Amino acid sequence: METRFKDILAAHQRISRFIHKTPIFTSHTCNAQTGRSVFFKSENLQRTGSFKLRGALNAVLTLKEKDESLKGVITHSTGNHGQAVAFAASLSDLPCIVVVPDDTPTVKMDAIRSYGADLVQCEPTPTSRKSTCDRLAVERGLSFIPPYDDYTVIAGQGTIALEFLEAVPDLDAILVPTSGGGMVAGIAIAAKAIKPGIKIFAVEPHGKMLGGCLQAGGRLWPNPPQFLDTIADAIRTQQIGHLTWPIIMQHVEKEVFTATSEDIIVGMRFAFERMKLVVEAASGTVIWAAMSDKMRCMDPGMKNIGVVLSGGNVDIDKLPWLP
Amino acid sequence: METRFKDILAAHQRISRFIHKTPIFTSHTCNAQTGRSVFFKSENLQRTGSFKLRGALNAVLTLKEKDESLKGVITHSTGNHGQAVAFAASLSDLPCIVVVPDDTPTVKMDAIRSYGADLVQCEPTPTSRKSTCDRLAVERGLSFIPPYDDYTVIAGQGTIALEFLEAVPDLDAILVPTSGGGMVAGIAIAAKAIKPGIKIFAVEPHGKMLGGCLQAGGRLWPNPPQFLDTIADAIRTQQIGHLTWPIIMQHVEKEVFTATSEDIIVGMRFAFERMKLVVEAASGTVIWAAMSDKMRCMDPGMKNIGVVLSGGNVDIDKLPWLP
Repeated sequence: METRFKDILAAHQRISRFIHKTPIFTSHTCNAQTGRSVFFKSENLQRTGSFKLRGALNAVLTLKEKDESLKGVITHSTGNHGQAVAFAASLSDLPCIVVVPDDTPTVKMDAIRSYGADLVQCEPTPTSRKSTCDRLAVERGLSFIPPYDDYTVIAGQGTIALEFLEAVPDLDAILVPTSGGGMVAGIAIAAKAIKPGIKIFAVEPHGKMLGGCLQAGGRLWPNPPQFLDTIADAIRTQQIGHLTWPIIMQHVEKEVFTATSEDIIVGMRFAFERMKLVVEAASGTVIWAAMSDKMRCMDPGMKNIGVVLSGGNVDIDKLPWLP
Repeated sequence: METRFKDILAAHQRISRFIHKTPIFTSHTCNAQTGRSVFFKSENLQRTGSFKLRGALNAVLTLKEKDESLKGVITHSTGNHGQAVAFAASLSDLPCIVVVPDDTPTVKMDAIRSYGADLVQCEPTPTSRKSTCDRLAVERGLSFIPPYDDYTVIAGQGTIALEFLEAVPDLDAILVPTSGGGMVAGIAIAAKAIKPGIKIFAVEPHGKMLGGCLQAGGRLWPNPPQFLDTIADAIRTQQIGHLTWPIIMQHVEKEVFTATSEDIIVGMRFAFERMKLVVEAASGTVIWAAMSDKMRCMDPGMKNIGVVLSGGNVDIDKLPWLP
């Protein structure tokens, strides 16, 4: 089992009538500052407010196709994947439980509830999330929808690249915010199948160490798995998944962009002030990366840069630049 | 001289290669809450961050067509029209002065300067703006670009309706934020020419008294002209213009939506939280109006409602819901 390009094409067939084909924006200011053409795929305008709906919906619909007696679904999430699974379940008339760390922002918990899911709180560690989720799945007979480490989820996220390259066939590179790695893996499989020469860059919050791991060719992360200390709460998982890791090793550039919380705020402010788009901190990483000194020093032959604005679920009463 | 439908078609020919055909968004939440289909024309994503570019550009380009020796342009503005004229002048390689009230938000003054215009400050009254502008126009030989009371400006704003009805031909009504009345007048002329049965509703900040004036058929406003006390700084002119007034009397519904600052915040928050769009307070008025009790009580035969999100130039360090 793996995720092949044809699985991504099938995912797009399966999910496209339920999702938005999100618009792609450009910014004269950004192009002038970078000397390249930058294209922003605005998954912040996706239903449920993030790209996560693509993977969750593909996973839930695939499960239902295989098992018509499916009792319901369960997942754990800091928010975006939880909203996505809750909405995907409601579209399929399935019960849904979402396990959330007890420090999840209220606005995200309310959003998950608004799609009709039941919430269960756990301690804010990767280990507690997993054990709570496993226990409830067995007790209630629910199927687990993983946030990233699942071939149907990866295939769903890969549909972003289909739409992006259909609209902008000349993309030379795509910058992708990276946490467990589902989105960057799916995008890499699809984009490289369509256009083998395209470069896929992961963008990470400070402390993730992805560049070091990719260059060493090994999983150097400490165990048990940790969350990073970053304002980008949607991408604070330190370790890449076990299924996404070999895909990323094969297809994603070893050169990784690393964003501090200050960098992330620069990126977010650009979206709010110049592009008039509400984006969450995870999307701030890639906007900053596109306009960074590191990008400025890269091959000028990379003319057309794609940037995935992953989501817009941010607490507007607690924007990170406010005192 | 007047603004005819054919002038609006000519304006669209003249300006369309310089402006964005702004996207139109829908919101499942808004449709579910209102029981109608609501379409948001997002002029907040227009170049310079507001619809004002349409009118300013049509005015500047028309002047230049008529007089190739045009020395430069001047205007007065709280910000959006100033940015628009500055950018329109830069596209035409013309010098530009913008007279701004001395209480204009810094973010707006910086934006005007960023397009290469010179700024001159005046007292924050309609009278001071006009006299400063008139004096400088004579001294420097510059042509004045009015913010709204000008037939070429009205024609430019009317192009919004061309794009809106091309994309959504079934619109039954359009809600328009109203200040001097250039946008609502232009939209009304174009929309009624294309679809005579369509209803055009003005939406005003509290204190404007437009409904009373329209119902009485007269200009009941106190003189000299005043600015309203509203958070919607882009639409705080109390009086409708003298050229826009008869157009509005003829084409715009006598029933006006009036938004308090609290109502405006409700509308703005909906854009930020649910639609992931940065809008300024003027746009908050129409979002609130579309979802208001007043709209809920209107003819259920009005199924498809257009809403013009006029602009997105807001100081993100001073959002009005923050303490």
